[in-house]
Amino acid sequence: MGSLPLEAMMPLNPDSFAGESSAVVDFLADYYRNVDKYPVMANTQPGTIRKLLPEAAPELGDSMDRILDDVQRDILPGLTHWQSPSFFAYFPANASTAGFAGEMLSAGLNVVPFVWTASPVATELEQVVVDWMASLLGLPERFHFKGGGGGVLHGSTCEAVVCTLAAARDRALSKLGHEGILKLVVYASDQTHATFQKGASIVGIPPANFRILRTSANSGYGLTATIVQRAIEEDVARGLVPLYVCATVGTTGLGAIDRVRELGHVARRYGTWLHIDAAYAGSAAICPEFQGHLDGAELADSLSMNPHKWFLTNMDCCCLWVANPTTMTDALSTDPEYLKNVGTTSKMAETVDYKDWQIALSRRFRAIKLWVVLRRYGAAGMRAHIRRHIQMAEWFEHVVAADERFEVVVPRNFSLVCFRLRPRFMADKAVEALNCDLLAAVNASGRAFMTHFVVDDKFVIRLAVGGSMTEMRHVRAAWELLKEKANDLIATGC
Amino acid sequence: MGSLPLEAMMPLNPDSFAGESSAVVDFLADYYRNVDKYPVMANTQPGTIRKLLPEAAPELGDSMDRILDDVQRDILPGLTHWQSPSFFAYFPANASTAGFAGEMLSAGLNVVPFVWTASPVATELEQVVVDWMASLLGLPERFHFKGGGGGVLHGSTCEAVVCTLAAARDRALSKLGHEGILKLVVYASDQTHATFQKGASIVGIPPANFRILRTSANSGYGLTATIVQRAIEEDVARGLVPLYVCATVGTTGLGAIDRVRELGHVARRYGTWLHIDAAYAGSAAICPEFQGHLDGAELADSLSMNPHKWFLTNMDCCCLWVANPTTMTDALSTDPEYLKNVGTTSKMAETVDYKDWQIALSRRFRAIKLWVVLRRYGAAGMRAHIRRHIQMAEWFEHVVAADERFEVVVPRNFSLVCFRLRPRFMADKAVEALNCDLLAAVNASGRAFMTHFVVDDKFVIRLAVGGSMTEMRHVRAAWELLKEKANDLIATGC
Repeated sequence: MGSLPLEAMMPLNPDSFAGESSAVVDFLADYYRNVDKYPVMANTQPGTIRKLLPEAAPELGDSMDRILDDVQRDILPGLTHWQSPSFFAYFPANASTAGFAGEMLSAGLNVVPFVWTASPVATELEQVVVDWMASLLGLPERFHFKGGGGGVLHGSTCEAVVCTLAAARDRALSKLGHEGILKLVVYASDQTHATFQKGASIVGIPPANFRILRTSANSGYGLTATIVQRAIEEDVARGLVPLYVCATVGTTGLGAIDRVRELGHVARRYGTWLHIDAAYAGSAAICPEFQGHLDGAELADSLSMNPHKWFLTNMDCCCLWVANPTTMTDALSTDPEYLKNVGTTSKMAETVDYKDWQIALSRRFRAIKLWVVLRRYGAAGMRAHIRRHIQMAEWFEHVVAADERFEVVVPRNFSLVCFRLRPRFMADKAVEALNCDLLAAVNASGRAFMTHFVVDDKFVIRLAVGGSMTEMRHVRAAWELLKEKANDLIATGC
Repeated sequence: MGSLPLEAMMPLNPDSFAGESSAVVDFLADYYRNVDKYPVMANTQPGTIRKLLPEAAPELGDSMDRILDDVQRDILPGLTHWQSPSFFAYFPANASTAGFAGEMLSAGLNVVPFVWTASPVATELEQVVVDWMASLLGLPERFHFKGGGGGVLHGSTCEAVVCTLAAARDRALSKLGHEGILKLVVYASDQTHATFQKGASIVGIPPANFRILRTSANSGYGLTATIVQRAIEEDVARGLVPLYVCATVGTTGLGAIDRVRELGHVARRYGTWLHIDAAYAGSAAICPEFQGHLDGAELADSLSMNPHKWFLTNMDCCCLWVANPTTMTDALSTDPEYLKNVGTTSKMAETVDYKDWQIALSRRFRAIKLWVVLRRYGAAGMRAHIRRHIQMAEWFEHVVAADERFEVVVPRNFSLVCFRLRPRFMADKAVEALNCDLLAAVNASGRAFMTHFVVDDKFVIRLAVGGSMTEMRHVRAAWELLKEKANDLIATGC
């Protein structure tokens, strides 16, 4: 594995491929063995790695062993360790042996299945796995290929949102003419992911036509039909055109749930596109006890969820289903000469060209990754995975509620607990500062990483259970850590 | 590696991770050993794989060994083998041992570096490698971080185009107001990748304001200043606003080269954004003898190229550089509460949050992949890689030109040769049919895969050299195959 003489450069020699790749596998296995020894959130000053590395790329190559030594020395200390069992921040990003195997197969076969011909099995396997997933989540028939709809694997929810917004926009503009773009209005709640506003801005919806509807504790911060209907009616009265409602099942801040069926009826009434963003909580819908949150999905035009969050599928993988694929391909199709299939046109009628279901032309063979995950763990294994985390979150919610110094701010829906330290007789402003300090102290300890949210002026700490290696002992340790830091802060007179 | 009892499901157990991952490595090494034994373009009927697989996901998990057996039996025969040494279609998608190692590290560490805090080293390594790449390509100082610009790794050129179009659009609309979107005009040539028109449509540019400018053989199908200037002046005279010119260095159809410096002067004169799309040929610019094609890049606002094509970097990886990052972050920033960094705000001024440089929030740690490629092969190794393919393409162009039955339709610029069979005394229409049949016969043989293009009503066959395992003997064999099929067709009286 020494540096390469130029004339002998064989970048895909099978023997050196096997040797060097095995070294990386061993490196990663060691990383997983030791991941809980690193500070979960990187304890790094800005600019550290930039100063460490040379200003220019090396002129000559180096051995894989030496490169891995450098990863160990220079890279690992600067990571925030998303695979640490004590990572409770944001939402999880599950790695797994099967997800990694699928990613290796995707990267190793390295096909680019933009049209069917460019790798038929990649397209068809994708159709199969998105139908499998639709069944597992209990989605209505209209989102399955066999029901006239269909799914696609994107890299992110934002891409799914941009594509469906473009579909809804172009459907509307085909009647209004392009100048109608100035009249189009989109609707979301104050809990909807920022990605939606960004997506609307990307597709050219006027910023003034983006409605952020207020939610409250009464509905558990879920969006209800009444408020959407009122907003739509106001806009219609002003001569605007309601385009798209984004409903979320499991919001990022609080895990809140919008009322899908109610919103669906409103959307139908006004002819607006309804998208269901179940990026995080969609995974839970493989368990029958959580499928009720998607009740009414047959009234939606599209639905997305991210296996790369809580479904043991390494980054990246987002499932998007649409009820009427033609609306999307009308907006996103291209048909340049260099992608046409010579001699195969006759059989093409039955095939899908996924380039017309996404933003980019090129794409990765993500289907094999999700397929390996489903094959390796089975539906039963995946349900056990989800339920294990829910149980740990239940336990955590219980101990927080039972400790009189703390409070659960919003009832837990899935595996996310939102809470704060709330000593009696402390002014609101002081409580906010206290929780801010508590979170900073927890994260600075390196023993866990959590993030926060603000709702109704309350600063709340979010603990999202869901790591692939997270066990009950890690959740217990997080709770002990929180109590320890809370004691320190209260003792020093915060 | 048997099926998993539910209670014991440990999806990231380091020991089983190592064992199962090694099995995948061995599987892929065997695949590379045998890849030239498969038909390069899949010889599959539509629906084959869909019929082969069960309708529902399995309830119980299976062993990795059994899954790999199924990949061998069901998946491999349905692939079009992009890593075959006889894959000459589209443009190459280079896999390499280093690119795969980098992909494994990215997938295995599985961090999501949307903000600096979410993995500081991932952000900073990205800044380092895009600066390294900018230097290797000889890009002007203004595209380096140290020069006030900066780069980012996207998944595709289309994403780069959408982000820069949104930046240019919002810069213009900040003066015009949002209703100005109806006046914005974008410019490209009839050789520009379809991705650009799709990108313009995604960001809401009116379809009627998309100018496709005619190129000709006189300029080698490159876009010249004269034609762009005329189009811009017509639009200005009509009260429209010229927004964005897309220049391509190495077009998909023919490998044509737009005149960057000339176009830059026009763009400056009218205040339009100039983007340089060097998706394929940008890799060649690491060799000084090809850097001249980017001459004038200091007049551009942005430039992109894809290491995932011809730079030994497994899918996906697109470098985008911008001269003024603020224009892009103004268009793409979000700042939701759940992504703010508690206790670290003070040091954030110096850091980059890459979520504001791209469409999606989430992102993969692509930087480590490109870094491993550069470390493993070095600049010298990469130049040797590029030059090896160029030499093979030169040889192929030479033998085609020397055979009187064939003709090179457009002079070769890089590693793409565009040619056709042109028997004397044959009518144009018959020549077109003949080449269509020739291409179909070559691809149906399974011994090579090429694609086509149409220029000035000529059907041309494209042979793009660039596979990681492609050697001179494969290019020779492709030429023998073409001659053999041409003889057959001519003998049967085409």
